[in-house]
Amino acid sequence: MQVNKTNSEITLKFDDKEFHWKQNESLLTRLESEGVVKLVFPLHDEIKRKQLLRNWALNWLDFTWQPIDEIYSYFGTKIATYFAFLGMYTRWLFFPAVFGLATQLIDFGSLQWLVLPAFFIFVISWAVFFLQFWKRKNSALLARWGINCSLSEYKSMGNELDSLGDALTIEEKKFSDVSAEKRKLQRNEWFGVLLRIRNNAIIVLAIICLQLPFELAYAHLYEITETEVMRYLLTAIYLVAIQYYTRIGGKVSVNLIKYENNQGEESSSASLVYKVFGLYFMQSYIGLFYHASLYRDILALRQVLIQRLIVSQVLENLIENSIPYLKYSYKKYIAVHKKKHERESPSGKSVRLSTRVEKEYLKPSYTASIGAELEDGLFDDFLELTLQFGMIMMFACAFPLIFCFAALNNATEIRADALKLLVMLKRPVPRAAATIGAWLNIFQFLVVMAICTNCLLLVCLYDAEGNWRIEPGLAAILIMEHALLLIKFGFSHFVPEEPAWVKANRVRYVAQAQNVCSKQLLKSISKLDAKLD
Amino acid sequence: MQVNKTNSEITLKFDDKEFHWKQNESLLTRLESEGVVKLVFPLHDEIKRKQLLRNWALNWLDFTWQPIDEIYSYFGTKIATYFAFLGMYTRWLFFPAVFGLATQLIDFGSLQWLVLPAFFIFVISWAVFFLQFWKRKNSALLARWGINCSLSEYKSMGNELDSLGDALTIEEKKFSDVSAEKRKLQRNEWFGVLLRIRNNAIIVLAIICLQLPFELAYAHLYEITETEVMRYLLTAIYLVAIQYYTRIGGKVSVNLIKYENNQGEESSSASLVYKVFGLYFMQSYIGLFYHASLYRDILALRQVLIQRLIVSQVLENLIENSIPYLKYSYKKYIAVHKKKHERESPSGKSVRLSTRVEKEYLKPSYTASIGAELEDGLFDDFLELTLQFGMIMMFACAFPLIFCFAALNNATEIRADALKLLVMLKRPVPRAAATIGAWLNIFQFLVVMAICTNCLLLVCLYDAEGNWRIEPGLAAILIMEHALLLIKFGFSHFVPEEPAWVKANRVRYVAQAQNVCSKQLLKSISKLDAKLD
Repeated sequence: MQVNKTNSEITLKFDDKEFHWKQNESLLTRLESEGVVKLVFPLHDEIKRKQLLRNWALNWLDFTWQPIDEIYSYFGTKIATYFAFLGMYTRWLFFPAVFGLATQLIDFGSLQWLVLPAFFIFVISWAVFFLQFWKRKNSALLARWGINCSLSEYKSMGNELDSLGDALTIEEKKFSDVSAEKRKLQRNEWFGVLLRIRNNAIIVLAIICLQLPFELAYAHLYEITETEVMRYLLTAIYLVAIQYYTRIGGKVSVNLIKYENNQGEESSSASLVYKVFGLYFMQSYIGLFYHASLYRDILALRQVLIQRLIVSQVLENLIENSIPYLKYSYKKYIAVHKKKHERESPSGKSVRLSTRVEKEYLKPSYTASIGAELEDGLFDDFLELTLQFGMIMMFACAFPLIFCFAALNNATEIRADALKLLVMLKRPVPRAAATIGAWLNIFQFLVVMAICTNCLLLVCLYDAEGNWRIEPGLAAILIMEHALLLIKFGFSHFVPEEPAWVKANRVRYVAQAQNVCSKQLLKSISKLDAKLD
Repeated sequence: MQVNKTNSEITLKFDDKEFHWKQNESLLTRLESEGVVKLVFPLHDEIKRKQLLRNWALNWLDFTWQPIDEIYSYFGTKIATYFAFLGMYTRWLFFPAVFGLATQLIDFGSLQWLVLPAFFIFVISWAVFFLQFWKRKNSALLARWGINCSLSEYKSMGNELDSLGDALTIEEKKFSDVSAEKRKLQRNEWFGVLLRIRNNAIIVLAIICLQLPFELAYAHLYEITETEVMRYLLTAIYLVAIQYYTRIGGKVSVNLIKYENNQGEESSSASLVYKVFGLYFMQSYIGLFYHASLYRDILALRQVLIQRLIVSQVLENLIENSIPYLKYSYKKYIAVHKKKHERESPSGKSVRLSTRVEKEYLKPSYTASIGAELEDGLFDDFLELTLQFGMIMMFACAFPLIFCFAALNNATEIRADALKLLVMLKRPVPRAAATIGAWLNIFQFLVVMAICTNCLLLVCLYDAEGNWRIEPGLAAILIMEHALLLIKFGFSHFVPEEPAWVKANRVRYVAQAQNVCSKQLLKSISKLDAKLD
């Protein structure tokens, strides 16, 4: 950061403008406010970009392998962690996809009734192990990249401590520094908890009182409308309305978390993630739940599932990639047109944008659809991934083949996202994030939800006549639900979250630090002694 | 530790024996092997002991207040943590005890049917918050006592790393030290997991195949026996048999965990705790479950509950305190008798034990009933506490008054345990333990179990005729079960496990350590540069 360190103002000239660079003022902010600098953004490194394009985005040979270390050094921790997660998820999806395919292709004869419960138990165990092994992989990645979590925690905490120190009056400081700070911290903490509870209550009420009736009304109206035309009209109205609703909901959430005193960026982005996911959860699944529980019509549910998964995901991928390209083309066209107009090129030969920087400036940036400065485009990518995971897990028993679709979709998703980042968009500013954060909690929540919804589905499947007595079937399914909840919370006990070698490294590091500290202390004490003698 | 550091053997004489103190041998182990030193144990500090007796064991004014810091400095972390937990648990028990009393005394008229579900929800939320606030309190206590968890982790890990270093051959070390170590650690880790799974499977199979049929047979036989005499006989046989069974089970568990490569003492003691708790869980509750689920007889269940809680806990307290005293008296009598015999005191005046050390040597030590060197008497105290918590939580709806009994019982338990430690037993060797460890996990498991069993109880209560159809009652209770599971895993989200001021301290400490380290590094680099110049 260039700052004026001389003792006088400096006068700068640019084109015909002239302005004064004051003492101790940053040059960059001055230039930005004068309109000379429009935007500061990192440029693509052409050599590395081409390398990544070849090895990663256009590498169709090995479906799930990715050059994670190179992605890390090019895009930073947060994006590299996303792709590592996406790759591992896709690799693991292979197992339930094969099992799902087998349930459709092979005829198990008299054991047919056992297939779905077995698939259910397999899928839940699979998800539990997947999430547990992801935690291991995450900590191994962090150890490889040499990232220390406690330091980032310190940074966010440090800011708060500083501001707290300023808030204490001098008298308080003089009297009892430690206990006053403790009391303030305690008060702050509980005040923050209260604010968070209030904000979450607002969101939950909004979802239950506004969104739920609306979604149910749509699902019900869609069922009772008879003509196809009316249905399409209804869906169109619904889509427009829900678009506005989620956008308003996102805005409200962004504004709400400003009033929470979250410690550091990580905690406030987690708070935002939970709120926005709540909105999308309702929007994506309530129609499916409606089908699954009220109509008990498995075939209709399957149709809706395929429709949603294929249409939504394929369309989304297309839109995700084509809209930025179209935007870029349009902007480029406008820019070229403008230049032509300005220069009135006499030779008539086509005017092209002169520099790479100009071209990249015109590319759209990697931003979140909720439009906050807090998050970048990863928010949307993670949201898409989470909604897909929820759909395949919660309705696994209704349609085991869905895992195949998801696996195929994710293999293309890796490439599509890579292309988007490398070609379509401005190079995003690297962000530090040690884990996938709140999204992991949401994945775990979805696993618990999946246990409940699949039990409901199985009850429907095995109780076609609708006489819900506690008979062997229902009792067995209820017992299975409890057993699966046990699996969920018991199995993760067997897979340690941190590999032994990462733990060994960490522990060694702490011990070294302690060692150096105590040596330093001893030295300074002996020096003091020497002075006193 | 006195070690012979001279270059030759030293010959020592004691009474008429003569033995050689070899080079580099510890004096203490030598003396122990020769039978000169019988036992090394810490002595009571009479002044502090009297102070603690007055302030703590015999302080009946404030029921739950305890001088935790003094207990900590006298007995060490582990015992102090136990008493802090017991005190907080007793204090928190006050709330459900009052609610439980209210449900029995007040007539709610037409809302009577709502009382039990409300009590159920209250009790589960209470338990969730209690455990969460205990975690906070625990970390606050550790911060006050200046205990750093990562260092103790280092110690246990360090040993393993050392032994690993020895195991690597020189060639391996030369070739690729880091990756070989990583591979070894990884292999060790998974081998450990497999061993643990195998051992747990053995215990679970033993419990299900041996203990469960035995317990069920007893419960069933007790029900069908008609004469009182036969019942008493049956119970006597059962008690003797179960005593042997749990003792053998404990021995087996202790031997099994020797074959697990647990990292450090903490992890192997946790493994032992889970196994032994499994045995006692079956023993304590299976009879109750039998009553609750098969007979659906709430009154009989209440009777059994009172019987178990009062009889078992009161008797246990008595036995816990009287047996050590009787043992001590007997040993003292024998010792006095022996001395009398030896000296043939001519004056005929009574011979008394001469020193305080002799007296204390005769006192029993604070050992675990499973008889392992791994654990001390705290194991039994925690087991008792956990079994009580399980009983009051899992059958809360059957008998809300049980919380009152538990609160009263615990208030006396604090004093009884304190007296036991201060008066009856040898002063125990202080043990380091940052938390209550595996017991906390067991408490959380019991909360989840409580949700399921209370739902079952409510179904029984509201379905007296026994026609189990999915009617509003059953459906409502199933929904309540799911809601409570949500509470269990959601509410703990709102209470941070670590108070903000503890986190601030910790983070500050890490930052300081980092700071010193990097300064040290810079200094040594600049020194190197200076030398090179």
